[in-house]
Amino acid sequence: MRLTTFTDYCLRVLMFVGAKEGETSTIEEIAGSYGISRNHLMKVVFRLGQLGYLTNVRGKGGGIYLAAKPERINIGALVRQTEEDLAIVECFEQSATDCRIESACILRQALGKALNAFLAVLDSYTLADLLAPRRKLSQILNIPAPRRLGKKAS
Amino acid sequence: MRLTTFTDYCLRVLMFVGAKEGETSTIEEIAGSYGISRNHLMKVVFRLGQLGYLTNVRGKGGGIYLAAKPERINIGALVRQTEEDLAIVECFEQSATDCRIESACILRQALGKALNAFLAVLDSYTLADLLAPRRKLSQILNIPAPRRLGKKAS
Repeated sequence: MRLTTFTDYCLRVLMFVGAKEGETSTIEEIAGSYGISRNHLMKVVFRLGQLGYLTNVRGKGGGIYLAAKPERINIGALVRQTEEDLAIVECFEQSATDCRIESACILRQALGKALNAFLAVLDSYTLADLLAPRRKLSQILNIPAPRRLGKKAS
Repeated sequence: MRLTTFTDYCLRVLMFVGAKEGETSTIEEIAGSYGISRNHLMKVVFRLGQLGYLTNVRGKGGGIYLAAKPERINIGALVRQTEEDLAIVECFEQSATDCRIESACILRQALGKALNAFLAVLDSYTLADLLAPRRKLSQILNIPAPRRLGKKAS
């Protein structure tokens, strides 16, 4: 049982961009910092833009930055959006299932409760929580100290 | 995010065998009832035997039955045994990870807590709970009323 690599990368991208505190990031920077392929990241950044988490500034000095304050970005909500499949077993899929015992299946209820408990924990975190060790994150990711030119994330 | 088909089948096999209340089941019966391939089920039954959940009786009239009382079979424990991978993201794998932010990663803690919450719900269920609607299960699965010849599961 694991989250998709796509969700994992979405979370790591938001942590990187958030650690820059309003300064723009580039896909090249993020790819270099995590050792992730640029192609993978382009899809991730595009989707995070569609979902309203990132804004893209074109041109020289451009790049991406958070489109919302870190404390407004809920991790549970994000995972629900980026996981294509939260069907913990086959019978949770929206496309019909033909498991015969479905109408008498306590297992289905148990797994539903377990999935809700998983997501409830993530609901209690925002991106701001993940950015709490910001100084250490910045050091590890080679992010320079913020110039604090103004708050681009709002 | 989903459990493996292997875990799903392990759970369904135990529900079938448990619903027979001590009478032996055959792989053919279970395969027919769930519409699952016999080959898949053989691996599942073999593994459940290795793990001490099923006993196999050879010969005419033989088959499989529960090797423990349903109330002694914990669903959380079973899932921990049958899931080959509870590494919710890459950095949970035992084989080394090179994610650079690991030492400052609150996300890893959050996902660990979420996984524990998922398993804690399953820990609160035993096979006996899943068998509570036994009459309905038996009807759906075409299991005849028990002859109660003696309790083979102990």
